[in-house]
Amino acid sequence: MPRDIPAFSTPAKNRRVILQTRPTGVPQAEHFTLDEQAIPDPAAGEILIRNIYLSVDPAQRGWAADVANYAAPVPLGGPMRALAVGQVIASQAEGFATGDFVYGFFGWQDYAAVAPSAVIHCCTQDLPLEAFASLCGINGVTAYLALTSLGRPKAGETLVVSTAAGSVGSFVGQIGKGLGCRTIGLTGSDDKVAVCREQFGYDVAINYRKGDLDEALAQAAPQGVNVYYDNTGGGILDTVLRRMAVGGRIVQCGTAAIASWTPLPTGPRNEREIMTRRLVWSGFVIFDHAADYASACDTLTAMHKSGSLTWRTDLKSGIENAPGAIAALYQGRNTGKSLLYIG
Amino acid sequence: MPRDIPAFSTPAKNRRVILQTRPTGVPQAEHFTLDEQAIPDPAAGEILIRNIYLSVDPAQRGWAADVANYAAPVPLGGPMRALAVGQVIASQAEGFATGDFVYGFFGWQDYAAVAPSAVIHCCTQDLPLEAFASLCGINGVTAYLALTSLGRPKAGETLVVSTAAGSVGSFVGQIGKGLGCRTIGLTGSDDKVAVCREQFGYDVAINYRKGDLDEALAQAAPQGVNVYYDNTGGGILDTVLRRMAVGGRIVQCGTAAIASWTPLPTGPRNEREIMTRRLVWSGFVIFDHAADYASACDTLTAMHKSGSLTWRTDLKSGIENAPGAIAALYQGRNTGKSLLYIG
Repeated sequence: MPRDIPAFSTPAKNRRVILQTRPTGVPQAEHFTLDEQAIPDPAAGEILIRNIYLSVDPAQRGWAADVANYAAPVPLGGPMRALAVGQVIASQAEGFATGDFVYGFFGWQDYAAVAPSAVIHCCTQDLPLEAFASLCGINGVTAYLALTSLGRPKAGETLVVSTAAGSVGSFVGQIGKGLGCRTIGLTGSDDKVAVCREQFGYDVAINYRKGDLDEALAQAAPQGVNVYYDNTGGGILDTVLRRMAVGGRIVQCGTAAIASWTPLPTGPRNEREIMTRRLVWSGFVIFDHAADYASACDTLTAMHKSGSLTWRTDLKSGIENAPGAIAALYQGRNTGKSLLYIG
Repeated sequence: MPRDIPAFSTPAKNRRVILQTRPTGVPQAEHFTLDEQAIPDPAAGEILIRNIYLSVDPAQRGWAADVANYAAPVPLGGPMRALAVGQVIASQAEGFATGDFVYGFFGWQDYAAVAPSAVIHCCTQDLPLEAFASLCGINGVTAYLALTSLGRPKAGETLVVSTAAGSVGSFVGQIGKGLGCRTIGLTGSDDKVAVCREQFGYDVAINYRKGDLDEALAQAAPQGVNVYYDNTGGGILDTVLRRMAVGGRIVQCGTAAIASWTPLPTGPRNEREIMTRRLVWSGFVIFDHAADYASACDTLTAMHKSGSLTWRTDLKSGIENAPGAIAALYQGRNTGKSLLYIG
């Protein structure tokens, strides 16, 4: 059962954050408007959820974009697609009871009437409620499944992580450390370098905005990089890829450094590096891994309880702060998982 | 035991093809000179080999280049590193007897005195001798091991192969077909399109120099490409990568389309495609797989004997034709494995 459940009210109206215009790059506050509607009625087979924590995720950029992706674009004029943690306040669906806490695609709004397929995880573990949008959110579960299934780090290997203090990276670094890797975190400020070292246990943390990243990497990983867990793409990826050891694995989990994919940006060609270094470069999208989600949460909870895994939440209050929150994420203004409490 | 062994003489001198100057791109005839030396004496632990077939391989470009690679650059003033099939004519090494046929790194020359480590494969299978530089050469074994271990094609999937009529691609297409794939070959002339269809059994063959490759691929693979076995890199790779199906695998086995890596060429950024399509892009170098070589040859021989695997040799005569042979390969002037008979 979750604990540390904050107080929350049940307002008479449903405030919603509406995607008003289509962004070409990172969604900005002005792409959204707020409206207020009646509380939706759950249809047969649906549940009604009162959202408590709204999640702000890098993936929302892709969801809002009007280009081929792994998910259909969010319709204009509708509530922004988003993850949230909430409580079931009415249920017309089997398997869900009033009072259950759930995590899933409930949108940036106070209430959601959804089919059970919108639920990603039933919050059953003994964790603070906010952890279900962090340790057991798509970020924590992505970190664990992508690192172990695609990165396959071995004890003694060198693991480099970009956005090392971020919502995914901070878990990757800690899990890699627990598996016996030497961990190197790349991050964008001296403050975050300190957080990487002190809170997330990285052996080395590098502020990539300062000095020569290639030189810093050469010093930090003289034998080359065995696993690169990449959340940024762009110039950082170009540099790390050329520091990979033979047989290295690159996990592509995000492209935060690319402000826009229209027009298609260019970079150095990589096929020769992939071949001669015998790299394996794999892409990961969490929504392929529904079958492993719950057991990953059990593992992550056990790691946390054993003391090897901690997290940091960048918690703000108020649904009115949602529209600008994705842009703030891409500017690197958060440290830890960005959440909005809307109780 | 090999069969169809051509007549060969044992001249009194050792003609050698010397790498005289360092190429920056594809080695041309003018980078080489011919000289004549005394036949070398095998030292203790060495064998003396009379080369019969010299192999011409795309990998020789990389071996001749003065840049980081998986192998040290060929020293200037020495014989060009090359694969060859020859006969042991004197042995000071255990496990090798006069009369044995062997395949390995014997250089572009009439005779080679080498340690057993230069031997890649002892030619024991019941095959025409030239097949040991083709079906059981690094090209056939690469095709088999890279396709099965990295491409992992399943019956019913769509397999695209670049340089589809070439020394590696022609085997990849046939092996993929045997595994139940729909096979699409990309090649550079209408003549080779015909060879792909008639000799190598491709379901579709596309001349990428004619018309719009993207459109042709969209028609030929409407559900997307599951496995792309790439020997070219460059613009062909850029196009196929954007036609990959979700979960597709790219095997990077060569970069024949890139004339020079100095300065580093650029292309469209691929990290978003890798992530959203959940691709796995892997590099293959045969020399990591010595332990699997002999059993791969047994498998390839069995496939050939069952009638599912044929090959084509682009056979010329005379060591004096070696210097221009790599350039001819990169111009796509061969169809099938390029060999020089020097008996």
